[in-house]
Amino acid sequence: MTVKQLALPELVDACRELGVPGVGLWREPVQAYGVEAAAKLVRDAGLAVTTLCRGGFLTAIDAGERAAALADNRRAVDEAATLGTDTLVLVSGGLPAGSKDLRGARERIADALAELGPYAEEHGVKLAIEPLHPMFASDRCVVSTLAQALDIAERFPAHQVGVTVDTYHIWWDDTAPVQIARAGAQGRIHTFQLADWITPLPEGVLNGRGQIGDGAVDMREWKRYVEAAGYTGAIEVELFNDAVWARDGREVLAETAARFVEHAG
Amino acid sequence: MTVKQLALPELVDACRELGVPGVGLWREPVQAYGVEAAAKLVRDAGLAVTTLCRGGFLTAIDAGERAAALADNRRAVDEAATLGTDTLVLVSGGLPAGSKDLRGARERIADALAELGPYAEEHGVKLAIEPLHPMFASDRCVVSTLAQALDIAERFPAHQVGVTVDTYHIWWDDTAPVQIARAGAQGRIHTFQLADWITPLPEGVLNGRGQIGDGAVDMREWKRYVEAAGYTGAIEVELFNDAVWARDGREVLAETAARFVEHAG
Repeated sequence: MTVKQLALPELVDACRELGVPGVGLWREPVQAYGVEAAAKLVRDAGLAVTTLCRGGFLTAIDAGERAAALADNRRAVDEAATLGTDTLVLVSGGLPAGSKDLRGARERIADALAELGPYAEEHGVKLAIEPLHPMFASDRCVVSTLAQALDIAERFPAHQVGVTVDTYHIWWDDTAPVQIARAGAQGRIHTFQLADWITPLPEGVLNGRGQIGDGAVDMREWKRYVEAAGYTGAIEVELFNDAVWARDGREVLAETAARFVEHAG
Repeated sequence: MTVKQLALPELVDACRELGVPGVGLWREPVQAYGVEAAAKLVRDAGLAVTTLCRGGFLTAIDAGERAAALADNRRAVDEAATLGTDTLVLVSGGLPAGSKDLRGARERIADALAELGPYAEEHGVKLAIEPLHPMFASDRCVVSTLAQALDIAERFPAHQVGVTVDTYHIWWDDTAPVQIARAGAQGRIHTFQLADWITPLPEGVLNGRGQIGDGAVDMREWKRYVEAAGYTGAIEVELFNDAVWARDGREVLAETAARFVEHAG
């Protein structure tokens, strides 16, 4: 998503040229390219697919919407398996229209995972609940902290359900380091993502993430926390930023790789 | 601030007409009107000044900036005392330019309160640390949760330093009810403010608070929490919203009073 301006073949080429060993993919461009074709493209390039983003949106009350969400998440698991990644990131969903019941919405996520966890396991895929910054609590993700994510994940085996640790969403939270240790002790850190916090936030606040090094987040500090918790997996950089997307994609990818080495290497 | 389009005499008239018994004031319009004159205006109308907003911005590293902030906060205490309110709300301040050290910034707030707390006490004023929503953590307030605010406040006597409970900033936090109980048990709930959470957030995210009843927050639930914690003080409605400010101020005040009765009465 950091370089969504690149078509998949360009992305794969650019990763190979830069020595980037793996890439997290999003469903929409993969579906547009064809899931099997994308899997072959990435596999032939020797590139690992670190995660697939994203499943989730599991908070609907309406039975039909809920069934549709579950079906879509099973498709996302299938796509992850086809792509050869073992991790599907979940953005859990916001409050249904008119609802003020955060607790109920969080319970419906747990109910859905009771169905999706075993399905994912059968396909060799782990689900990674991503707490999103509290500014997304009403309209995108009612899971706002690692503690909340782990409270849900702990109801399931770790190889079915864990969490995503993303610096952008948790950097402000002084309890997050303890929660990272908790997640690590249970084997539930399923992926680790970097983005920096910059202001002012844009209207709608979705596409204002900063290139690493540009903002308030100490990347090395968070990397130390996840490493101390036993995480040895890939580190992804996930920027949603209109200004970044308007630039040349290969240049952004090269800059991102350089910033990674500088701030998190 | 909810009706900042009203000059102070209009505000006082409108409150009297509507039977609103108290008003939280902001420093800028009070200073513009004259502090003594504002105090007389409100006192003559029989209107209570519930709080003065705001002191704070105590995170500077630079010695000169820090001394200026302390001096300004002492002036804010003086103004509160002149206005006859016992509560000064503190917005603690963001990260200094280039800093990524949230912990250090929070410690500098505590250091400043060690100087300001006794000064406030001498003037009959309590300081109320306001945790602001985590989306303000870098540029406005490094204190993002009630737990963080209480961790600082607890170092001082409750009649010197307590907290502000504002639904807009904490509604997403499932640990906030326990923290409200903690604050109440210590006599540290110094004020309680209402605003609703609506999306999409505007650019800069400051002026997007919703009229109560328009958003995701269950006002009665939060009112129950603070009342169960022993709070018997005023309840303020504090909206920052460009659309609200563009409307007729008396109409907004009447609407706000009606919404208060409907959603929090």
